[in-house]
Amino acid sequence: MRTIRVETERAYDVFVGAGALALAVDHAQGRQKRAVLADETAWKLHGNGLNFGPQCPLLLLPPGEPAKETAVLHRCWEFLAASELTRDALLVAFGGGAALDVAGLSAALYMRGIDWIAVPTTLLAQVDAAIGGKTALNLRQGKNLVGAFHQPVGVYADPHCLTTLRTSDFRSGLGEVLKCALLGSMGLMELLESHAGALVARELELTGKVVAACASLKARLVAADPLDRGARRELNLGHTFAHAIEHVAGPGCVPHGLAVSVGLILALALAEEADILRDATLTERTRRLATSLDLPTSITQLAQLAGKPLPPEEILRAMDLDKKTLADGLRFVLPRELGQVERDAAVAPRRVLRVLQAACR
Amino acid sequence: MRTIRVETERAYDVFVGAGALALAVDHAQGRQKRAVLADETAWKLHGNGLNFGPQCPLLLLPPGEPAKETAVLHRCWEFLAASELTRDALLVAFGGGAALDVAGLSAALYMRGIDWIAVPTTLLAQVDAAIGGKTALNLRQGKNLVGAFHQPVGVYADPHCLTTLRTSDFRSGLGEVLKCALLGSMGLMELLESHAGALVARELELTGKVVAACASLKARLVAADPLDRGARRELNLGHTFAHAIEHVAGPGCVPHGLAVSVGLILALALAEEADILRDATLTERTRRLATSLDLPTSITQLAQLAGKPLPPEEILRAMDLDKKTLADGLRFVLPRELGQVERDAAVAPRRVLRVLQAACR
Repeated sequence: MRTIRVETERAYDVFVGAGALALAVDHAQGRQKRAVLADETAWKLHGNGLNFGPQCPLLLLPPGEPAKETAVLHRCWEFLAASELTRDALLVAFGGGAALDVAGLSAALYMRGIDWIAVPTTLLAQVDAAIGGKTALNLRQGKNLVGAFHQPVGVYADPHCLTTLRTSDFRSGLGEVLKCALLGSMGLMELLESHAGALVARELELTGKVVAACASLKARLVAADPLDRGARRELNLGHTFAHAIEHVAGPGCVPHGLAVSVGLILALALAEEADILRDATLTERTRRLATSLDLPTSITQLAQLAGKPLPPEEILRAMDLDKKTLADGLRFVLPRELGQVERDAAVAPRRVLRVLQAACR
Repeated sequence: MRTIRVETERAYDVFVGAGALALAVDHAQGRQKRAVLADETAWKLHGNGLNFGPQCPLLLLPPGEPAKETAVLHRCWEFLAASELTRDALLVAFGGGAALDVAGLSAALYMRGIDWIAVPTTLLAQVDAAIGGKTALNLRQGKNLVGAFHQPVGVYADPHCLTTLRTSDFRSGLGEVLKCALLGSMGLMELLESHAGALVARELELTGKVVAACASLKARLVAADPLDRGARRELNLGHTFAHAIEHVAGPGCVPHGLAVSVGLILALALAEEADILRDATLTERTRRLATSLDLPTSITQLAQLAGKPLPPEEILRAMDLDKKTLADGLRFVLPRELGQVERDAAVAPRRVLRVLQAACR
């Protein structure tokens, strides 16, 4: 079992490895009052056998992204109130990033904040969503437009849960892993380059090692910047593009991590265009690694996947509402070299459009 | 104009006096992007002439307590997104406690938190709700069961707004004023005792003085305890009873401040019953002041107002779900003497019931 400490105001641990599910159960049983909010699919596959305590109330959430709606959040609140949870209760959030987002948000707001633990069951959630306390909902106008910061009191990532993921969901998680490699040290990048095949095959020990490396990177950035005002923005690398692409494609049409993979390639291209990228080999190296991880590298590939065109002009327009945008222009996180980014690069919209157009060819 | 500083992590000022509305307008015009969320009634009476900036988007909220619903919160979010508000925007919350609660909560969560200013237009909101960053929604299961802490960046309380309040709404605010007198120094108590008539007549200079005294008390407690974990709980004096009574009466049937007035008398009675009250004259003194402020002092009076019985057993049951309750029993804020409370008194339910029964006779 690997343990990674997240040094926020109230520090907590991320446990990565076989047996993490059992540790989560132990944590919950230590509380007098508790309840579970779980993604329906994840619970059927991995939750049924777990005993989170006698008569522990359970609410199943719609699988995936549709959980991130106001109506579902409201249902969570009514469930917590009907379960008579008090301020000292513990909420267990079980599932992928979407389930953790809505469950974490309901914990943030129920009685103005109760404790919660995250049990991420997808690669995306284990390397990213479960750590750092960012919770969110989607609006018609865009993804994650509503949310709160509410750190969990523990994260339990068991690589066994990943064995049942659909290939497309596992691949989606690899998009965030690729981002971590670009943000992190040479170590993770080289590990991925030399073991891409074994990772795609979900070899357990390697998967745990990769998840732990990503979690460590995230823990470091979250500790440096719990409210996402500085260092932590690095984690948005590729995401301004990704969110805009997902918005144009429509809800659920493009897996998040696949959009991130293309977003990373676009960020590298924009960094070149804006003379920010110092290491000229990084774009090609990233493109090669993405391909060996079976990840897309162009908007055209995503358009095929979505079964509809993704016009550059529409993507640019969607970026305008993204919350990383400030009133005075378009802002991006852009790579300088491996392990280093420019966090707040202002780029003229016409240059962004040029890069988007090139990626559609 | 009186100015009271609230020393939270990010300090802000409460302006009390004639001309505060104009100061709020100045504050908003200093921002590039802004929007107004306003109680419909309050806006018609006091907002129409105000110019919060060219083409400043405005959403009117249902008057009073019905605004504190998930559906209204969702409408606020969609309005902010449709108005293309960015993270650096300012939200103006305009109206009574309910409007400020839902508007403040929408600011707390939109893009994980944007700045907001509060323009309280009721006495209740000026002395209590507008200061301290507590925002909330109601659920079927109880009042304020959902919410967040999100301090405003300024509060603008103009006593002129109070001249148009319905008598019942002004009286409701006096319930919270009475609470402040019990919590505060001898000064406010004596001011009220010697000028009760002028306050009920809403004499402007006196009203401003009273609002400022209450705001100072609240500012001090909020600064000592921004997240409501210690000192600030004093402000819940009378509220465990009040919330339970309001819940049993049904939404909107009993004005909050009137329930608080009775809650204060009940808290004094329970403090006597539990041998916590040291000053034996305080109960009678408070009862007399309440009466001269035209406030109710018994559950029977509230039941007449609600037009339905308010059985002690049901009130006790409703207290069980109140968020001031912990898993291990019923907890209360109880007065020791003028200006001093016991913050976390555990009292056996049968003693609480006895006090409730006595107040129904």
